[in-house]
Amino acid sequence: MVATGAVPASPPIPGLDLPGVHLLHTMGDTFALEHALAVRSRCSVVIVGGGYIGLEMAEALTTRGLSVTLVEQAPTVMPTVDPQLGRRIGAELASHGVSVHTGLTVSAIRGADGQLRVLGEPSFAQAADLVLVVVGVRPDVELAAAGVSTGVRGALQVDRQMRTNPPDVLAAGDCVETWHRLLEAPAYLPLGTTAHKQGRVAGENAVGGQASFAGSLGTQVVKVFELAVARTGLRDQEAAAAGFDPVTVGSAEFDHKAYYPGAHQLHLRITGDRHTGRLLGAQLVGNHHAEVAKRIDITAAALFHAMTIDGLSELDLSYTPPFGSPWDAIQLAAQAWTNQAGRPRREHLGLDDLADPKAEVQRDRPPAVIRRLWRPRAAGGDQGRR
Amino acid sequence: MVATGAVPASPPIPGLDLPGVHLLHTMGDTFALEHALAVRSRCSVVIVGGGYIGLEMAEALTTRGLSVTLVEQAPTVMPTVDPQLGRRIGAELASHGVSVHTGLTVSAIRGADGQLRVLGEPSFAQAADLVLVVVGVRPDVELAAAGVSTGVRGALQVDRQMRTNPPDVLAAGDCVETWHRLLEAPAYLPLGTTAHKQGRVAGENAVGGQASFAGSLGTQVVKVFELAVARTGLRDQEAAAAGFDPVTVGSAEFDHKAYYPGAHQLHLRITGDRHTGRLLGAQLVGNHHAEVAKRIDITAAALFHAMTIDGLSELDLSYTPPFGSPWDAIQLAAQAWTNQAGRPRREHLGLDDLADPKAEVQRDRPPAVIRRLWRPRAAGGDQGRR
Repeated sequence: MVATGAVPASPPIPGLDLPGVHLLHTMGDTFALEHALAVRSRCSVVIVGGGYIGLEMAEALTTRGLSVTLVEQAPTVMPTVDPQLGRRIGAELASHGVSVHTGLTVSAIRGADGQLRVLGEPSFAQAADLVLVVVGVRPDVELAAAGVSTGVRGALQVDRQMRTNPPDVLAAGDCVETWHRLLEAPAYLPLGTTAHKQGRVAGENAVGGQASFAGSLGTQVVKVFELAVARTGLRDQEAAAAGFDPVTVGSAEFDHKAYYPGAHQLHLRITGDRHTGRLLGAQLVGNHHAEVAKRIDITAAALFHAMTIDGLSELDLSYTPPFGSPWDAIQLAAQAWTNQAGRPRREHLGLDDLADPKAEVQRDRPPAVIRRLWRPRAAGGDQGRR
Repeated sequence: MVATGAVPASPPIPGLDLPGVHLLHTMGDTFALEHALAVRSRCSVVIVGGGYIGLEMAEALTTRGLSVTLVEQAPTVMPTVDPQLGRRIGAELASHGVSVHTGLTVSAIRGADGQLRVLGEPSFAQAADLVLVVVGVRPDVELAAAGVSTGVRGALQVDRQMRTNPPDVLAAGDCVETWHRLLEAPAYLPLGTTAHKQGRVAGENAVGGQASFAGSLGTQVVKVFELAVARTGLRDQEAAAAGFDPVTVGSAEFDHKAYYPGAHQLHLRITGDRHTGRLLGAQLVGNHHAEVAKRIDITAAALFHAMTIDGLSELDLSYTPPFGSPWDAIQLAAQAWTNQAGRPRREHLGLDDLADPKAEVQRDRPPAVIRRLWRPRAAGGDQGRR
């Protein structure tokens, strides 16, 4: 059983080995950083990388009283959500005193007079006592790669029983490919939730079971100061790349009845297939007390079952004024999608041979029945019917 | 289109017509109560009924500075959840100064010297300035009942297109029967969420559509001071009455990683069918900042799709230490259920004719495929196979 995890990615930046430059992945990395902070009374830090770890560290170090500068290569922080939401996250960081620089590539780190200097393009130079480099991870396959096939991003290839080639070697976690339930293909998604599920499947099969990994939707959440940021499924360009015909509709909804004190506005982006009305993904940003994480999870449960966007409104969700509305915010966002993108027309679904001629589009189909319909169109094919 | 709603139930208690005794259902009732409170400087109130409205009023009036006594006929408040959870809610009320009396039937309300006196069995007598009687509702069918068939609890009979008999009369909301998705039978569930969904279906069909109501799971939530209390699906005795073979397992799980500040313990009760492993219901009590409402909604989305309890652990839910665990609390509670009740054995599922002989129990089956298996056993039937 191989469970070697991941190692932090090292970008090609001169100066990563200077004292005061930290990667952050292992317990040892954390202790080293803690020690570096403890020996300084005041301290400025540059964080290279505006993903999950970079944002969490920006919050933690700001809370600790440090002066924090965050540098991200993409046009907005947290490029795993759409720029419309990334800009909100950037504004949240700035409002808490973080100096945010996006669209900026770090070119070198230099040391002089006990201080570090971070240089970047275009035209960035920032002095710092500490530099944190957190630009993602890559699978740690050093132990296994000699004897085991590798695939996406160099991760170990596994089937849904978590067997490698050779099949008597099982593997799970951040070192392996992850079956993506929507793409119906392997991806590299090094997430704790996925690692736990894969470990359970691998463990059961290692002792003679026949468990199968149900697949990941890439569901994720992070807290950034007062905000929670969550996503599940595919974004527009990811869905398009996979052959879907995506439409993404943004909306703003209150987390609960506005007349009840403490209502917060949520910003939602729902992605669905124009052709079939199938739900493909959701992104959600809102106050950290607005049940953002579990709202994305409701959507993830719907995605798991290949629901349509219209079908979301049929879910029997709870309501009381302090916690929601008779239609939950995700249902209102789904209705906003349908209002903008339209309901798929019956002839677009190719149901003529399946359905009662009087039946309208069925809104919630079990995956087995609709697999043929739900699959992305082959490139170039099926254009006539649109 | 009939949408007459419900009217408050009037229990057979002498004295309901005395000045100072209030029912609470309409806007007018609320204004009358507001006025009664405004003209008194200090005030004591007895609330008859420990359901949703009674609990919300106990919180609201206590917050307003009134001295509140709550009386409930059942052994615990909020008898729509199991007594183990009802006792926690009673303790929450008491810790905020509400005087809670359970297992007590109000027999009369008397007026003397400008004060009211509430009498009950066994041995209860309590003076009050105001009495609030909130013991539920019944369908308001006065307008329609002459020409329309009625069913459960006297509500208007409707099909899933929300057509009554006669079919040109559509009806929706608290005046009609509600199709229960698990029971596959009508029930009376006067809830705002359900009314909205039924109204949408009826409206679409009134203008020539073919929409169908997907059914209710009885998903509900209420806030009681610092607690949120939520449920979805069937409780043990409801499931047994419907012919299932239920097991209910209680557990306590943290809402998020305990090392991250502010973790709260959630108390969960999961009900499933011993025979098939099918998820039948869930109840959840926890701090109102612990995303209780949306956690029950994740479970409701799973129930909607007829998942097994084992299947809950396959949902790709979000994780970050401030909001959850790599297995969410509902997945841990599901695992506790399986650890206690056991996984259903393959021969119990009657899959021999369906499944690959090497396949283990499939954990997540679309409703159409497993309808035969998922249906409650007919009374007295199918005993040989257990």
